[in-house]
Amino acid sequence: MRLVLDAMGGDHAPETPVRGALLFARERAEHEVVLVGPADRVRDCLARAGGAPLNVRVHPASQVVEMGDQAFSAIRRKRDSSLRVGFELVRRGEAEAFVSAGHSGAVMAGGLLVLGRLPGVDRPAIATLLPALKGSGRCLLLDSGANVECRPEHLAQWAVLGSAYVRARLGLARPRVAVLSNGEESSKGTALTRAAAALLRGSDLNFVGYAEGRALFSGDVEVVVTDGFTGNVVLKTSEGVAAGVTGVLRSAIEARGGLAEKLGALLLRPTFAGLRKMVDYAEHGGAPLLGIQGVAIVAHGRSSPRALQQALEAAARSAEAGGHAELTRCIAQAAAWLPVRHRGKSAPSGG
Amino acid sequence: MRLVLDAMGGDHAPETPVRGALLFARERAEHEVVLVGPADRVRDCLARAGGAPLNVRVHPASQVVEMGDQAFSAIRRKRDSSLRVGFELVRRGEAEAFVSAGHSGAVMAGGLLVLGRLPGVDRPAIATLLPALKGSGRCLLLDSGANVECRPEHLAQWAVLGSAYVRARLGLARPRVAVLSNGEESSKGTALTRAAAALLRGSDLNFVGYAEGRALFSGDVEVVVTDGFTGNVVLKTSEGVAAGVTGVLRSAIEARGGLAEKLGALLLRPTFAGLRKMVDYAEHGGAPLLGIQGVAIVAHGRSSPRALQQALEAAARSAEAGGHAELTRCIAQAAAWLPVRHRGKSAPSGG
Repeated sequence: MRLVLDAMGGDHAPETPVRGALLFARERAEHEVVLVGPADRVRDCLARAGGAPLNVRVHPASQVVEMGDQAFSAIRRKRDSSLRVGFELVRRGEAEAFVSAGHSGAVMAGGLLVLGRLPGVDRPAIATLLPALKGSGRCLLLDSGANVECRPEHLAQWAVLGSAYVRARLGLARPRVAVLSNGEESSKGTALTRAAAALLRGSDLNFVGYAEGRALFSGDVEVVVTDGFTGNVVLKTSEGVAAGVTGVLRSAIEARGGLAEKLGALLLRPTFAGLRKMVDYAEHGGAPLLGIQGVAIVAHGRSSPRALQQALEAAARSAEAGGHAELTRCIAQAAAWLPVRHRGKSAPSGG
Repeated sequence: MRLVLDAMGGDHAPETPVRGALLFARERAEHEVVLVGPADRVRDCLARAGGAPLNVRVHPASQVVEMGDQAFSAIRRKRDSSLRVGFELVRRGEAEAFVSAGHSGAVMAGGLLVLGRLPGVDRPAIATLLPALKGSGRCLLLDSGANVECRPEHLAQWAVLGSAYVRARLGLARPRVAVLSNGEESSKGTALTRAAAALLRGSDLNFVGYAEGRALFSGDVEVVVTDGFTGNVVLKTSEGVAAGVTGVLRSAIEARGGLAEKLGALLLRPTFAGLRKMVDYAEHGGAPLLGIQGVAIVAHGRSSPRALQQALEAAARSAEAGGHAELTRCIAQAAAWLPVRHRGKSAPSGG
């Protein structure tokens, strides 16, 4: 399996992607990683990290999509950007999957413009599988940040994609689907959420109505759809709270500083380590971009080398599983209740 | 000080409000609580709880605003609802403050229609002071759920109100103000956030630009403005994560079940209790509705009697502090950079 990693994506590129590629490549000799980016800089990084094993290659790309760029125009204009060149490798069949910790809106735009949509999908969405904080329940949140301005049929399409993904990934026959809202009553929400809920009430999905923010972690629903602005804000809020709560605990233990607290903390060290791993989303290794003709994994901008290693693992798994046939089948089936899309003439506005 | 408590607001009304009123009234003989709701039901509750002390009164109101009601039409139509009657008592000067754990959009609508706006304010906002999860930083989030559809000038007005409130409440001279967004770069966000940020860049506030969800708990900003849909979703997500993380910790300790974990948990019990209190927003006792001519406190729908007691404390404190002169002064001053409002003819749509 050949996987492309955007060497210029993320907060400490190219150092972090290079180190992530090496972690992955050394453990997975059967796969190959192609680092896309300015060849000299990437090779320098590899050299400093002790040289590349045989299954790490560098593919040149002279430009970089910056975090402040407009997603679609960046993909259109920067034809030699690591993001665009990486997707082109997948399109030409020279690699099986693409991974980037860069501008998530631009990853969406690249997937859409270079690889193309699945039939029946207007916009791809980033699907984040949230950690289970209650029971064994896990919840897929989409869109987590690719599409800022959305229409109701986008949310309905993502409900179909999300259900199919959760069925395949978690083995649930009828995942419960909800629209994220500011209250459970159907009078709540915005024009967007009300119209999306109306579409989904007519669907063959296991639609349970509106869900509030706390449902993302309560184990009551398995798929939650929302616009990418809200999805992104929610995701980053939850990271902030998780980091904050564990931090408060640490400082409280240090501040009290008694022997009891020190001993207690020592005895609970393995428990705390497990918790930190669970709430440290960077460990989760990226979220698939669902709805495109190929495999792309969006990693967190703050990803560590270890997180990028995990993202490459996720990419390899996804490419091997080849879930596209199933997603395509489900979206085709949904045509029975999803309205015909009337695509606007203007370019979609990615975040 | 005479405080009105909506006896029909919240998940277990009227039992919970009645018990909250009693907790407060027994400790605060100098204040009086007026429970507004169906007199027979409220009196029955009081009798079951052991009878009312002298500083608890019942004021009759035969109707109830339900959670599924449209906020503004409910206030207009249900003229004898506990919510509307409660606000009327404040308007007539028969009480100093109003507290409700009911429909937050309807509390906003009641404040606006019965008490009226402060000059220069289009819409009141619910202002939630988030717990400090890092350092001593606390952050005021507004709007936390009263206004679902917003205009840029609403967010700008709330930035003014929020800054003034934080200055008075936390004693900070120049609180940092941000607009909640899906990224820090100014190219991110929606049409609403971009226009609000443009207004605030021209203001005399300490505006620092966009903030991501994690900034709510990082101690980097003190005032964050957003629309009430996003604000509500964010608030409930953060509650879910906080409850989830502490729950995971508890189950991990139980599941491992070794002597070390049990002893560790025992030694850390005071620390855990402190953490739970901090992240249990119900303990925080409600959020002020800023921008109206009077004091109203919006309590969480899931408020416990103890949380409603705290909300009554907050109401008494606010009414005593009389911060309205300061809010009025700040909003008047902001006229220098805030555009003249062009109020629409249609009724505002509360959530």
